[in-house]
Amino acid sequence: MRKVGIIGVGQSVFGVRGDVTLQELAWEAINEALNDAGLTRKDIEISVVGSVGTREYELLPAVPINEYSGLSEKGPLRVEAACATGSAALAVAYNMVASGFVDIALAVGIEKMNEVDSATSLAVGGRSGNYLWEYHFYGTTFPAYYALYATAHIAKYGTTEEQLALVRVKNQKYAARNPKAQFQFEVTVEDVLKSRPVAWPLKLYDCSAITDGAAAAVLASEDAVRKLKIDTPVWIEAIGYASDTANITRRENYVGLKATRLAAQMAYKKAGIEPKDVEVAEVHDCFTIAEIMAYEDLGFVEKGLGGKFIEEGQSDIGGKVAVNLSGGLLGKGHPLGATGLAMIYELTKQLREERGRDRQAPLKRYVGLAHNIGGTGHYGYVTILRR
Amino acid sequence: MRKVGIIGVGQSVFGVRGDVTLQELAWEAINEALNDAGLTRKDIEISVVGSVGTREYELLPAVPINEYSGLSEKGPLRVEAACATGSAALAVAYNMVASGFVDIALAVGIEKMNEVDSATSLAVGGRSGNYLWEYHFYGTTFPAYYALYATAHIAKYGTTEEQLALVRVKNQKYAARNPKAQFQFEVTVEDVLKSRPVAWPLKLYDCSAITDGAAAAVLASEDAVRKLKIDTPVWIEAIGYASDTANITRRENYVGLKATRLAAQMAYKKAGIEPKDVEVAEVHDCFTIAEIMAYEDLGFVEKGLGGKFIEEGQSDIGGKVAVNLSGGLLGKGHPLGATGLAMIYELTKQLREERGRDRQAPLKRYVGLAHNIGGTGHYGYVTILRR
Repeated sequence: MRKVGIIGVGQSVFGVRGDVTLQELAWEAINEALNDAGLTRKDIEISVVGSVGTREYELLPAVPINEYSGLSEKGPLRVEAACATGSAALAVAYNMVASGFVDIALAVGIEKMNEVDSATSLAVGGRSGNYLWEYHFYGTTFPAYYALYATAHIAKYGTTEEQLALVRVKNQKYAARNPKAQFQFEVTVEDVLKSRPVAWPLKLYDCSAITDGAAAAVLASEDAVRKLKIDTPVWIEAIGYASDTANITRRENYVGLKATRLAAQMAYKKAGIEPKDVEVAEVHDCFTIAEIMAYEDLGFVEKGLGGKFIEEGQSDIGGKVAVNLSGGLLGKGHPLGATGLAMIYELTKQLREERGRDRQAPLKRYVGLAHNIGGTGHYGYVTILRR
Repeated sequence: MRKVGIIGVGQSVFGVRGDVTLQELAWEAINEALNDAGLTRKDIEISVVGSVGTREYELLPAVPINEYSGLSEKGPLRVEAACATGSAALAVAYNMVASGFVDIALAVGIEKMNEVDSATSLAVGGRSGNYLWEYHFYGTTFPAYYALYATAHIAKYGTTEEQLALVRVKNQKYAARNPKAQFQFEVTVEDVLKSRPVAWPLKLYDCSAITDGAAAAVLASEDAVRKLKIDTPVWIEAIGYASDTANITRRENYVGLKATRLAAQMAYKKAGIEPKDVEVAEVHDCFTIAEIMAYEDLGFVEKGLGGKFIEEGQSDIGGKVAVNLSGGLLGKGHPLGATGLAMIYELTKQLREERGRDRQAPLKRYVGLAHNIGGTGHYGYVTILRR
């Protein structure tokens, strides 16, 4: 495999972005990524667009996005893996560079989730599970799915609602310092506990929101990195992937996600590292319980001790691994297709030590990890970066 | 780049397949491809699912398809490129093998287009163009788009309705001999000319239909091909890709597709061959005019002489290049996501000389070409195979 480096990253401001079209939103991220790499659109050989797309008016989002960005001859496909779409787009672009198919590729992830009404949005969310058995018969939607996991985790390991709340408190601390986050304010444990119930034990602040946003990364082969004289390339050490049953009743248990576990095992093995080598991570905190399960499934802490891990500050700066210094999906927002690439954006900035005193992880080994889940573990991606 | 071989192919029966679920339809193709390769599902390292998906009840089709096929841990993404989706899925799987990411990959393309009512289906088709400028303002749908091209071709080059009809006549001749085709009967020029008008000059028989179907290919690295002792691997020599503006008013002209031209140039250059080296081809005949433009844009004949090319029998067995011996999209059916991989299915069988007296292309150089278009040239893929 050819070595692949990240040479430029970009991210739009996340939030309710009625001020821009789908194309303009994508360009915010693409333009920043090109400038960051010191390239122009002419240098891009292929553009891989990640978008779930069911909430946008354009049914073929890759076409107008590439056209508006001056890449209309170079955008031959769209990639989808539910909420892990951004990571899937990265994996496709990565393989196209690693194989020698192209030398320079763009991966862009995008979602405009506020173009359709919220009833449609909810239906789409529910139908991303298993249509017949769950959505159609029981009307299950995402908060309900993750509430099942949360109650199981509470029942088996004594995880508390306060521990869940601490995830949101930590992530809002950093979202408040991230000018591109959807929710730029801090919250207390009390705020979270007092927020209105959505699906017990999950309250409003335990849940990520509906977000518009885009993120992008420019990838280059080792030769191209040298030729372009890139100062601080961040190398993609490994991508681990997995997928799992859509039928929630067939899951092995409800206290963790097999897709995370399998993807992490694959990524660690390929990169030749262990969980303890990871210094900074962006994990898939679509709900507070999801971040706690991620600590465990990624091997940062033993299964069942995720609640204690956050309580002890082990997932904060100064702890064992600094998690979600972007604000995470909870604080920064979760525009499905963009999320995986927004993780890459944050980690690239972190590994280049560009985050300043406010939210820079202290680094010795310069190893970062992105963990991106689709559905309730239907898809899992773990990407390991190193400067 | 590592060399990549096609070691197994499968295709479901195409048609109106209310007799099976989406998952069962996919399995028809996957099962045949696995058996053809002499492998089991356990040998597959990654499964790339191509599906446009807007006409199916499952919004995340890759998940239930992989689950039903016993690949639920190995299907981390879906790929979409409108009607070129199957070729895009092949390109993604190809790069994953070529890079060394995996040794054995499955690409499966599928569409169940008859699950939604025809009004929805029509809307989806129209919205695959450019939403705002064309579908919303003018209500343009696909027959209308291709009718624009047909009238331009007639006006500029004197192409006749009879020549258009001859495309359908040739393709039905072979569809009648293909037990997996949607329409297994022959037609005459008169039948085509007398069929009811859809969008002049296109009549009913100038148009491909709404089809359910699936197709699959198993890809392997050169090492894996050797290790598995595959007798007749068919090698992917090159994949060319392109994309083009969604705004039909910005197209360079209306007598050909730039996406075909660019993708073909890239593919020929990478494979080190010329158009005259191609002996057997599957081209994107979504409408009769599309096949005539393909002859020209692929370089089989000079621009403007496509009508004469079919009239002289140059695109039939015994001519310069045998085109659409599967029956093409017109005769075999056009289940969007499956189409590109069904082309690979037919070409693999042809290059292995397994088609018998009825519809085997005579081969000397053993070079085949698949040409797959998304939208009205929004996407273009040209894949060159050699035994």
